[in-house]
Amino acid sequence: MTTEAKSNSRERLLEAAATLTYRDGVSIGVDALCKAAGVSKRSMYQLFESKDELLAASLKERASAYVATLLPAADDSRSPRERILHVFAQVESQAGASDFHGCRYLAVQIELKDRSHPASRVAHQVKANLTSFFRGEAEQGGAADPDLLARQLSLVFDGASARAGIQADNLTGLIAPTVTTLLDAAGVR
Amino acid sequence: MTTEAKSNSRERLLEAAATLTYRDGVSIGVDALCKAAGVSKRSMYQLFESKDELLAASLKERASAYVATLLPAADDSRSPRERILHVFAQVESQAGASDFHGCRYLAVQIELKDRSHPASRVAHQVKANLTSFFRGEAEQGGAADPDLLARQLSLVFDGASARAGIQADNLTGLIAPTVTTLLDAAGVR
Repeated sequence: MTTEAKSNSRERLLEAAATLTYRDGVSIGVDALCKAAGVSKRSMYQLFESKDELLAASLKERASAYVATLLPAADDSRSPRERILHVFAQVESQAGASDFHGCRYLAVQIELKDRSHPASRVAHQVKANLTSFFRGEAEQGGAADPDLLARQLSLVFDGASARAGIQADNLTGLIAPTVTTLLDAAGVR
Repeated sequence: MTTEAKSNSRERLLEAAATLTYRDGVSIGVDALCKAAGVSKRSMYQLFESKDELLAASLKERASAYVATLLPAADDSRSPRERILHVFAQVESQAGASDFHGCRYLAVQIELKDRSHPASRVAHQVKANLTSFFRGEAEQGGAADPDLLARQLSLVFDGASARAGIQADNLTGLIAPTVTTLLDAAGVR
């Protein structure tokens, strides 16, 4: 393959892995992934050591776009309280999409049930970064216990994403009052 | 098969389905399930229409035991607030086990990604029953908005179970303050 062909195949495999595992789960087979990407299995194994590595790479490449859709912009000048509420407004908005199955970084870890899997490791780090964001905002916002608030917000984030993903709750009128109550209790005004 | 042999095979298949899907996920194959149960595939298909039906039956049969480990006893005379906190103390205690992978009724729905799957339907009902329990206690406890509190408690329950299941949080010092804050805000003393 030429360098350009390699790069195209790589992109298509990453896209197929992201789309199909989100829709159908991590047990999706290599044949289905290659078929969706229009790439031969031989080419796939030249580009990625294994399906596990392809899955991990696809989660990693999407992480910055995912974070960008959730977090406030770098030059956002609102208060920590408003910046935290922004993240949850984004979750509520995403949950309204008909193809929403919850946070992919949570789902992949629940599905794999193996913390040492390369894809679990990538997903774990993405979620740890979100908790760090909450921790930083909590501290800047004067939270009485920034660690506790960051853990609480991560818990609400994952609970909301999971429940909306399985269509147990549409989140309307739920997240804002919950997060507000926790921010108030922590003293973040 | 005799009636007794049928009943034994059925039990072993239900047990294998519960154990293996919890540990490895719903994509576990029929061969693995039959092997673990010591039952032939032919016998399995005489007892259950499909693997999907076996999975649904195994979730259904375990539901009452699951509910019993979580909810206060029927003759428990504590206040609604204490009865709600009891459920979360149980979650925290379960999360300490090394083989804890979160709530199986949440995990199976996240894994299947198909609300019409027979196992998803069973799991959805079990979780809806838990929300109803919260709703009843919230009302009895004088919550300002019992529906909102029941949704909040369900969200915390699933968030806590998911995060402990993927080992993102050990829940120590997290659930009680979170639930207490929500109960206080709702006016459940």
